Amino acid sequence: MQITLRVIGIGPGNPRQITLEAIDALGDVDAFLVLDKGGDKKSLSAVRRDILTRYGRPGHRVIEVVDPPRNRDPADYDAEVRRWHAARASIFTDVLTTEVPDGGVAALLVWGDPALYDSTLRIVDDLAEHSGLSIDVEVVPGVTSASALTAAHRIAANRIGEPVHITTGRRLGDTPHGADTNQIVMLDGTLAFRQIADPDDHIWWGAYVGTDDQILISGRVADVAEQIVAARAEARERIGWIMDIYLLRKG
Amino acid sequence: MQITLRVIGIGPGNPRQITLEAIDALGDVDAFLVLDKGGDKKSLSAVRRDILTRYGRPGHRVIEVVDPPRNRDPADYDAEVRRWHAARASIFTDVLTTEVPDGGVAALLVWGDPALYDSTLRIVDDLAEHSGLSIDVEVVPGVTSASALTAAHRIAANRIGEPVHITTGRRLGDTPHGADTNQIVMLDGTLAFRQIADPDDHIWWGAYVGTDDQILISGRVADVAEQIVAARAEARERIGWIMDIYLLRKG
Ligand SMILES: C[S@@+](CC[C@H](N)C(=O)[O-])C[C@H]1O[C@@H](n2cnc3c(N)ncnc32)[C@H](O)[C@@H]1O
Ligand SMILES: C[S@@+](CC[C@H](N)C(=O)[O-])C[C@H]1O[C@@H](n2cnc3c(N)ncnc32)[C@H](O)[C@@H]1O
Repeated sequence: MQITLRVIGIGPGNPRQITLEAIDALGDVDAFLVLDKGGDKKSLSAVRRDILTRYGRPGHRVIEVVDPPRNRDPADYDAEVRRWHAARASIFTDVLTTEVPDGGVAALLVWGDPALYDSTLRIVDDLAEHSGLSIDVEVVPGVTSASALTAAHRIAANRIGEPVHITTGRRLGDTPHGADTNQIVMLDGTLAFRQIADPDDHIWWGAYVGTDDQILISGRVADVAEQIVAARAEARERIGWIMDIYLLRKG
Repeated sequence: MQITLRVIGIGPGNPRQITLEAIDALGDVDAFLVLDKGGDKKSLSAVRRDILTRYGRPGHRVIEVVDPPRNRDPADYDAEVRRWHAARASIFTDVLTTEVPDGGVAALLVWGDPALYDSTLRIVDDLAEHSGLSIDVEVVPGVTSASALTAAHRIAANRIGEPVHITTGRRLGDTPHGADTNQIVMLDGTLAFRQIADPDDHIWWGAYVGTDDQILISGRVADVAEQIVAARAEARERIGWIMDIYLLRKG
């Protein structure tokens, strides 16, 4: 059995931030595989559903794949993540063999761009390797949340010629001196910059960037840190979940 | 006089890699300002012209702004770049006041995403500050060449949780140890990785990514470096110009 598995970046939240290429790529898909990550990010999946209704071909199927259980606080983080990916791959194989015709196309929609802090390409690689199916992988790039953040603040990520370091809240403290001129920080549930940034660093923070709920705050770290903490807590409480990102720049 | 100055990311070369938001943003523009950077990148401007013809409103104007002369090898690099940006800003002010009506919209199209290694936002900031016009800046994000590269190679930029460092050929040698796990290198006319990478590092290289001329090479640095050098030289000779980018990963 041969199938095409298409990984499609749909942009970081604003439904107009999808590319024509992604829309083209949605048009001949037999089955969309949707990871059910639990109920707390309802409007993320609302955006995805909306995109499928608009651009999917009539008669396409949407198959919710329930995520296998995951230990969020394991002794060996990497090993647990790998185990969890393998478990996912086996669930996907079952779904593909029953739901996609030979020669057909299945697709996974990815928030933002598939290359950045997303496990879909790893699932797909696991599948291609372990499923026994002949899988053709296609990837459609998307606008990243980093680009959405900088556009919303109307700033460049770098001053002339400078590097840009993209990292997570968990790893922010590990960035070596000299690589920290411009940092884009994602997946930061604790606002780690408060422990790590200099008071004089500049921060451009954004939550739900590109959506109707967008919140933007920027300024000297010492001046705006508490404002960001408060806005984040308030929004998270009010909306029920949060996605936020920031650019941190040395003075 | 009040005008809106819109900076629109059009993606990195494939004309389908433009977003719906960018297409919306093109629709009510009075005048597009195009920087004439000399004749060697003909098909770059062909893509831009094609996009304007397709999505610009009937009657829009396209104004070529000739770049002021620039010293490419100055004693003080940053000072020369700043001088050159100021000269540009003054040319733009003249054009805007004569070509855009009060309350109108002028736009600049930017290759890829406006936040990454592009001077347009700096020109626009100079303008907003020095022109005496009241300028409202809007920025529309685009797919970056980094995302196009990783999509074409069907890879993620990072392994689980790892940071991604984006830099230029000129600065590649300055990346501190520990920030160099995954590096995306742009603007590298000399393929600087040959001096800097370990033989066992992995490289994913791409030229004209997303276009009909796309070339992709990947492998262990020691195995593919000469192949990349040869392909780059051949393509540059044949096509007359080159744009290339790579991801370099520690083993
Ligand atoms: C699992 S990562 C996925 C990133 C995605 N692949 C991309 O290209 O942006 C999720 C993180 O992306 C960031 N993010 C995604 N969309 C966002 C948005 N609209 N506003 C703010 N942050 C966003 C947040 O930092 C969040 O923790
Ligand atoms: C001045 S920078 C502009 C980058 C752009 N703003 C972006 O978001 O990709 C130009 C560099 O981008 C890279 N680049 C842009 N488009 C590319 C493409 N289609 N293929 C390969 N490299 C590209 C090359 O490294 C080139 O030297």
